[in-house]
Amino acid sequence: MRMEPIKTIEWIADQPKRLVPGMIRLVDQTRLPGELILMETRDLRQVWTAIKTLQVRGAPAIGIAAALGVVVAVQDSRAATGAALATEVEQAADYLATSRPTAVNLFWALDRMRLRARADSRRAPADLKARLIEEALAILKEDLAMCRAIGRHGAGLLKDGQTVLTHCNAGGLATSQFGTALAPIYMAQEQGKHIRVYADETRPLLQGARLTAWELMRAGIDVTLICDNMAAQVMKAGRIDLVMVGADRIAANGDSANKIGTYGVAVLAHAHRIPFYVLAPSSTFDLKLTTGDAIPIEERGAEEITCGFGKRTAPEHVKVYAPAFDVTSARLITAIICERGILKPPFGKAIKKAVDRRL
Amino acid sequence: MRMEPIKTIEWIADQPKRLVPGMIRLVDQTRLPGELILMETRDLRQVWTAIKTLQVRGAPAIGIAAALGVVVAVQDSRAATGAALATEVEQAADYLATSRPTAVNLFWALDRMRLRARADSRRAPADLKARLIEEALAILKEDLAMCRAIGRHGAGLLKDGQTVLTHCNAGGLATSQFGTALAPIYMAQEQGKHIRVYADETRPLLQGARLTAWELMRAGIDVTLICDNMAAQVMKAGRIDLVMVGADRIAANGDSANKIGTYGVAVLAHAHRIPFYVLAPSSTFDLKLTTGDAIPIEERGAEEITCGFGKRTAPEHVKVYAPAFDVTSARLITAIICERGILKPPFGKAIKKAVDRRL
Repeated sequence: MRMEPIKTIEWIADQPKRLVPGMIRLVDQTRLPGELILMETRDLRQVWTAIKTLQVRGAPAIGIAAALGVVVAVQDSRAATGAALATEVEQAADYLATSRPTAVNLFWALDRMRLRARADSRRAPADLKARLIEEALAILKEDLAMCRAIGRHGAGLLKDGQTVLTHCNAGGLATSQFGTALAPIYMAQEQGKHIRVYADETRPLLQGARLTAWELMRAGIDVTLICDNMAAQVMKAGRIDLVMVGADRIAANGDSANKIGTYGVAVLAHAHRIPFYVLAPSSTFDLKLTTGDAIPIEERGAEEITCGFGKRTAPEHVKVYAPAFDVTSARLITAIICERGILKPPFGKAIKKAVDRRL
Repeated sequence: MRMEPIKTIEWIADQPKRLVPGMIRLVDQTRLPGELILMETRDLRQVWTAIKTLQVRGAPAIGIAAALGVVVAVQDSRAATGAALATEVEQAADYLATSRPTAVNLFWALDRMRLRARADSRRAPADLKARLIEEALAILKEDLAMCRAIGRHGAGLLKDGQTVLTHCNAGGLATSQFGTALAPIYMAQEQGKHIRVYADETRPLLQGARLTAWELMRAGIDVTLICDNMAAQVMKAGRIDLVMVGADRIAANGDSANKIGTYGVAVLAHAHRIPFYVLAPSSTFDLKLTTGDAIPIEERGAEEITCGFGKRTAPEHVKVYAPAFDVTSARLITAIICERGILKPPFGKAIKKAVDRRL
């Protein structure tokens, strides 16, 4: 039996032949890895809470949840006109935008829903509702296509029997399915290749232990969990053929911001002559940033480190430094893989071309 | 007020003018950092349990606890002769040796106590008891002198205002006081230098968070706790002037085995041109090992990673790789500091000389 990664977020229509009304079904990621709870909702407030409390996480998955959230908000509306319905769309979008105020993908997806509502506000309400769910599902399908494209390009780099190290979770759980950094592994599996994975647990929030290990195991992929500080030893022992990680933001020169610890893995990979790949959608490129030096390093709360496991494991009042992410210099990156293809250094030209094709 | 590191283990005589009878007072390290519990005991079984359950930990501290454990075992003995008392010493030592079967320092300290008992078995029991406590306190004093010597040599490398990164706990809590890797920091403080420390939390058992951060804070030293995967970012940001770590075992060429994660820190320090120092007593040198390749990498149980602090944070049945330590190649080590002085590369000759002076 071929296994595939779980669908992180889906739309379940009430009737087979009509897309609306329906409900959102999503994997409650706060319950993983202990329990697989599929949360089903047709309630706007619940969608807001799901985004706020990280039941759904990962930029692409948040965008999809928000777009579908707009649909559940208005699908039972009794608005008499398309224009009135479009106003309800704006209100729902405004509300959802407050769930995670720094999530760029959230705003982008909500803006697409607003634009659709405005463009079609002269239609009958039923017709506009159909257009809205189509728009939201288009966002989902585009994400799926993006993940599969990144996966296909990346899978070409994987030989049967190889072992990949990954950090954090740029997996299916961060997108609709398949993910970015993990997509090549799933695609290679589809191609019949046997790929092994080492997953950094990724302190402080343990996304590697909780999410990456879980989704890979569930898809039947051979995954071994390690603490972050074991990656060097695993590389030294010759167990790793290549590193694949995601990115939150990539500067024009290829410098890549990602979860804290990624930069350290890149330095270690470089020292052990192991190829280091960054996998992310082309929407991650930010040409306004000349280099990664311009990216401010956000800091997180100390409690994530001092009380990580429900139990206090550090002295009261200890000073903590908790950067949320770090920036990997382009010179440490073997290639950047986006849905447009494999970009090789020097990255400047290749990134510009990938962005231009996107526009 | 000048602060100094806590005494990890002490002997408290019942009367001011006689060393025996008395009791052992030790910091219960299983209760840190939440509570500072000074456990006082004159009971052999309790000493055995303290070693077994890591209430006392770190090779030197374990050796001292065991030697004092022999004293509490026999101090109230009514043996009629020194020879009979010496037999009780052998029995107590045999029993204590079962507490942690791989702790070399434990056996070494117990053997010293056996030899003392045998050598003085013709003395009167009261006299032999006095000789035994003197031997045990000699082990403690030698440890203290060793720590202070390492500290003095190391403090010479520290300039006022500098920042040290350390990994795990090679601090006062692993010895009688002061420690090895942390001794230079305490000595520099005595000299009036202001030294800052970054402490890796050190997964899976968090000795950095629980012990290093605690003992440095308690001694009034400016310490900042980070997750292991943040060390690279902290180095990149220019916050670290040098790295100081301990060692469990050092091969004839300088390759050094220490807590998992140390090797990764060494690679990162090298990449950022930050000096990397190993600090350990000369008893750590093992000339039977030509290089570190001969050191087998012990693996620990998966539960330490998957259920770190009472809560399961990884999927059931996930495969785990959990090396207990790693080996840092001599080429990554700027200098090795032992009680004999600062050894510089190539280490082979310097290590041999330090060992020869010791014999």
